[in-house]
Amino acid sequence: MTVPVDSLLNVGLVGAGRIGSLRAEALAHRVPQANVVAIADANLDAAESLAKRCGVLRTYRDYQELLDDPDIGAICVSTPTNTHAEIMVAAAAAGKHLFVEKPVALDLAEVDRALDAVDRAGVLLQIGLNRRFDPTFRRVRQAVLDGTIGDVHLLHIISRDPAPPPLAYVQHSGGLFADMTIHDLDMARFLVGSEVTSVYAQGTVRISPEIGAAGDIDTAMLLLVFQCGALATIENSRQAVYGYDQRVELLGSRGGISTGNMFPNEVTISTADAVRRDLPMCFFLERYAESYALETRSFVESVLAGRPPSPSGVDGRKALELAIAARDSLASGKPVAIAVG
Amino acid sequence: MTVPVDSLLNVGLVGAGRIGSLRAEALAHRVPQANVVAIADANLDAAESLAKRCGVLRTYRDYQELLDDPDIGAICVSTPTNTHAEIMVAAAAAGKHLFVEKPVALDLAEVDRALDAVDRAGVLLQIGLNRRFDPTFRRVRQAVLDGTIGDVHLLHIISRDPAPPPLAYVQHSGGLFADMTIHDLDMARFLVGSEVTSVYAQGTVRISPEIGAAGDIDTAMLLLVFQCGALATIENSRQAVYGYDQRVELLGSRGGISTGNMFPNEVTISTADAVRRDLPMCFFLERYAESYALETRSFVESVLAGRPPSPSGVDGRKALELAIAARDSLASGKPVAIAVG
Amino acid sequence: MTVPVDSLLNVGLVGAGRIGSLRAEALAHRVPQANVVAIADANLDAAESLAKRCGVLRTYRDYQELLDDPDIGAICVSTPTNTHAEIMVAAAAAGKHLFVEKPVALDLAEVDRALDAVDRAGVLLQIGLNRRFDPTFRRVRQAVLDGTIGDVHLLHIISRDPAPPPLAYVQHSGGLFADMTIHDLDMARFLVGSEVTSVYAQGTVRISPEIGAAGDIDTAMLLLVFQCGALATIENSRQAVYGYDQRVELLGSRGGISTGNMFPNEVTISTADAVRRDLPMCFFLERYAESYALETRSFVESVLAGRPPSPSGVDGRKALELAIAARDSLASGKPVAIAVG
Amino acid sequence: MTVPVDSLLNVGLVGAGRIGSLRAEALAHRVPQANVVAIADANLDAAESLAKRCGVLRTYRDYQELLDDPDIGAICVSTPTNTHAEIMVAAAAAGKHLFVEKPVALDLAEVDRALDAVDRAGVLLQIGLNRRFDPTFRRVRQAVLDGTIGDVHLLHIISRDPAPPPLAYVQHSGGLFADMTIHDLDMARFLVGSEVTSVYAQGTVRISPEIGAAGDIDTAMLLLVFQCGALATIENSRQAVYGYDQRVELLGSRGGISTGNMFPNEVTISTADAVRRDLPMCFFLERYAESYALETRSFVESVLAGRPPSPSGVDGRKALELAIAARDSLASGKPVAIAVG
Repeated sequence: MTVPVDSLLNVGLVGAGRIGSLRAEALAHRVPQANVVAIADANLDAAESLAKRCGVLRTYRDYQELLDDPDIGAICVSTPTNTHAEIMVAAAAAGKHLFVEKPVALDLAEVDRALDAVDRAGVLLQIGLNRRFDPTFRRVRQAVLDGTIGDVHLLHIISRDPAPPPLAYVQHSGGLFADMTIHDLDMARFLVGSEVTSVYAQGTVRISPEIGAAGDIDTAMLLLVFQCGALATIENSRQAVYGYDQRVELLGSRGGISTGNMFPNEVTISTADAVRRDLPMCFFLERYAESYALETRSFVESVLAGRPPSPSGVDGRKALELAIAARDSLASGKPVAIAVG
Repeated sequence: MTVPVDSLLNVGLVGAGRIGSLRAEALAHRVPQANVVAIADANLDAAESLAKRCGVLRTYRDYQELLDDPDIGAICVSTPTNTHAEIMVAAAAAGKHLFVEKPVALDLAEVDRALDAVDRAGVLLQIGLNRRFDPTFRRVRQAVLDGTIGDVHLLHIISRDPAPPPLAYVQHSGGLFADMTIHDLDMARFLVGSEVTSVYAQGTVRISPEIGAAGDIDTAMLLLVFQCGALATIENSRQAVYGYDQRVELLGSRGGISTGNMFPNEVTISTADAVRRDLPMCFFLERYAESYALETRSFVESVLAGRPPSPSGVDGRKALELAIAARDSLASGKPVAIAVG
Repeated sequence: MTVPVDSLLNVGLVGAGRIGSLRAEALAHRVPQANVVAIADANLDAAESLAKRCGVLRTYRDYQELLDDPDIGAICVSTPTNTHAEIMVAAAAAGKHLFVEKPVALDLAEVDRALDAVDRAGVLLQIGLNRRFDPTFRRVRQAVLDGTIGDVHLLHIISRDPAPPPLAYVQHSGGLFADMTIHDLDMARFLVGSEVTSVYAQGTVRISPEIGAAGDIDTAMLLLVFQCGALATIENSRQAVYGYDQRVELLGSRGGISTGNMFPNEVTISTADAVRRDLPMCFFLERYAESYALETRSFVESVLAGRPPSPSGVDGRKALELAIAARDSLASGKPVAIAVG
Repeated sequence: MTVPVDSLLNVGLVGAGRIGSLRAEALAHRVPQANVVAIADANLDAAESLAKRCGVLRTYRDYQELLDDPDIGAICVSTPTNTHAEIMVAAAAAGKHLFVEKPVALDLAEVDRALDAVDRAGVLLQIGLNRRFDPTFRRVRQAVLDGTIGDVHLLHIISRDPAPPPLAYVQHSGGLFADMTIHDLDMARFLVGSEVTSVYAQGTVRISPEIGAAGDIDTAMLLLVFQCGALATIENSRQAVYGYDQRVELLGSRGGISTGNMFPNEVTISTADAVRRDLPMCFFLERYAESYALETRSFVESVLAGRPPSPSGVDGRKALELAIAARDSLASGKPVAIAVG
């Protein structure tokens, strides 16, 4: 599996929190062509602790210092969402290629400002819609692409968290659609390979009155229409008590595809009560560990090869646009049409 | 499994076609408490052939003669939909208890006329929404009733035929929603145990241009809102090339339930190409054979016990009302609100 | 599914116990070409009760009266094992074709006496090794026959009862190998399509000291060598607390096959504790219901067509011979060679 | 997942081949507490290439130089089997703790010589029976230990390679039992938690006449008796055309356990032909990747904590002793008794 390391990409990481740590470890242990040369975080202790763990030599409190480092070819932006656009603009100005966690921003105008800066600077940009790299979902996409199931007619996506996030997180998340559904909206576009022309959403508070009091929902269903004629539904819940549930199912003219969850082991136990398995992998860090590594590697390979990474800034923007349409549909009680360029 | 046959119900069957044959055989071989004493069909040859096969002694061309038979306690109406209401009115007048295949009619006024006649006569009525008796779906309902999954939050129903019906059938079917989705709408009410307050439907022609030319659709997605707060989606296709696909999935506050298809055997074959199973049971006569037998037996037991059968005439009416709402939603492009009494 | 009933076979049933009832009901409801004309049982009440339930007109205490009935073409022998040979000899003398439950007898000399009588009389004989008709195991055999898995290399059979039989049953059963393993030994011959040349058996008492005190075992493993070069293992237990467990698994030069148990429904429930299914079908009357019906129908069709039924008397004898070899191997602690003609 | 790296173990690796590379990468990327300081291999180029890939600074042609390094606390012996004993003796003399790939040797006297040296020197020793660390098999063992299935009655192990190894490998492998079955014999001891008292083996050549010509077999079945009364069967094949097949199944007094293979994705595709999955993970490097990492980490943690590692030298010796008993049973055609201390 080890590839030749003839060419190396020096990467600077901005953000040493949960996702930043994940990126640092992926870059250190899973991407032979990458070299993390510096980590910046306003919390310098976090940056230093992570740097020590991953054998990184330089740390900064201010990301601008990292952008000034001429050795660094690419920046990984793993900071809170509200800082993405600013860092992207600065990094583009510094001529650094960019990997940015999703969502780019919670506001389309801000997204456009960041994407414009990237375009003008001519740097490469990949958005962290990591699920596209999950081996199971990639295999589904491959089966669509190679015609195994023919034209796509119907898609259903199940996406359920094991438990609601902390209220503080919810309050800055942009709401269920922008925080959680955005992954499923991107997955729908990725799997079907067509643009959404209509979004209808219903949502309720069934799990956490706190979330309701904060003006958000915790349970939702969406119905999408695609330009190619396909129809899709998405179901979201902030709490499936048995664990993280991430599945898709497609029907096409020549066949169907369904996916199962991943489990920590392949053991079935039969007793006088039931035939049972242990619960599925508990949450996204575990379930999508492989996708984070493959996504990070793909970015590095794209930059080293000088080819446009995928998913692109446009993919990131589209996912947000659909999430906002879902919010509007819920507010109005009617389907929302999406203009397709 | 054999029950004491101390009391016997004499049943008259109207309709000797595909579904009528299925009822006759269920009554003869699977319902020890029933005795089929006569079969009526405008096609007398069909009635006679079926009677011979099932050891039934009397046959009639005109169902009225059968209604005049004082030995007969209950009538099974397995004729084309457009004759149901008329036969129900006549049977009610004759004081016969009634089992009627779904849908009662394609028009709510006609349904109401038939249900009124039944109510006034005080005869018992069961509607042939057979899937409620399928052991798998019954088990799902039981898990909802006993609280295993807590309050229902989300429901998804997959209902796909193996191939489109003949065009002649489609033309008199009342459309996809009244012919096919009606089962799923009833299943949604049955499983959730609450009334639907809003229906949004999208439908397209993806499989059969012929069906499109006849003014119908072959592919659909619906999004339902329930009075209890649950949300549901239904997906329908007239053609899943791998066979009949009938599944449901629920998420509740305390857990989730999903169901699988039934297969003709439990064999898995692994070769150099794939790990594979044979296709699922091919269509409804096979897949729902058990449900037809259990449904027929439940009707006979209810009549012998003098208790109201289930699903009731109201259940039959509700399923049609929701199917009509789906049709209206598709036409208007908007969700349709349903009044709940 | 209903076949033309141009020709009918009049069948007489000897034995109105649990298995006799099962045969009577299969003949009455599942085999259109059969007509049960009489039932004989030393316990006349049992015969009469069963006759009433299945619409059979004549009953006898003495099976000889039944054999004297010139209307009867075939006899179904569903009596205790120790009476089989005697009834077979008498029925053969009366020129009746024979269906006989397994095992033919517990003694090879007695089996040979019965088979000789059948051969001399030229009547047809089928042995009730019903599992060969189970749709799952038939599908496995078909995949072997059509070359899907190539030459058979390895076979593993799992056969576990849900609970030990009553001690009174065990005492007259001929021991685990002749009562329980005999089915698996026949299945091994059926699936591999070759003769066994060596049997090695190990057995212990792990479940029921009572069974041990009666001189029998409740837990066993066998290792078989086949003439074609295949190797097989069989595992038996009198008690799998989760229910009846009946599976096989083959490896061949071009692939492998494995089978799963049958379940009462296709429901999976996920809660905070586990992902679980209900227990498999509880015992043989339920699990093998279909095989009993198909086996009975196959016998009737063979007799009506005048072709030798399968499994044959030789198959019944072989299964017993291998069970006896297993007993000898357990006693001696060594493999036992089997002469192949 | 990252643990504090307060204490670090300096490890020297002997052997830079396929397994050596796997160890080096596990130590570099998956075991934070380990530091690979040197790699020795008679093929110095291999040592250097691996060292470069894993950031290791020192390489040697002669392992004795590595043993002379006072910084090194533990040695990982990943060389060909016939060199293990010699290296173990030398490493023990140098006071180094030892991780040794299985089998220790192909000869019990040689194993004893090596284990004696280890014992006398008082160094810690772990044998590379990696499958004990596989999350699925560990979960099985846990269920046995916590009483979930009660006393173990029956065990069946399926162990099939995707294709035969090269003939050159076979010729120095010690034969199927010492090379392949040895893992399953260890697994049987590990899962049951009792000693084997009798081994009966049958083996044939069904796949590769070349292997037969070399005096080895490619297909085998074994039947084991345990001191605790459990019985076990093992099936081995050098070629399952659908891929690597590694499963176990236990029956106990309170329940049963079965395990499934691991797949590269969780996708099921249904077309007009079949319902199918991709083939299971193709071979041991992929299937057992996690077990190699966990095993290596466990060794390092044991040495740092100063506690005896597991599996021990005795476990390694026992597995070989049983493999030799299987060979003797095949030769004699009789079960072989094993003395239990």
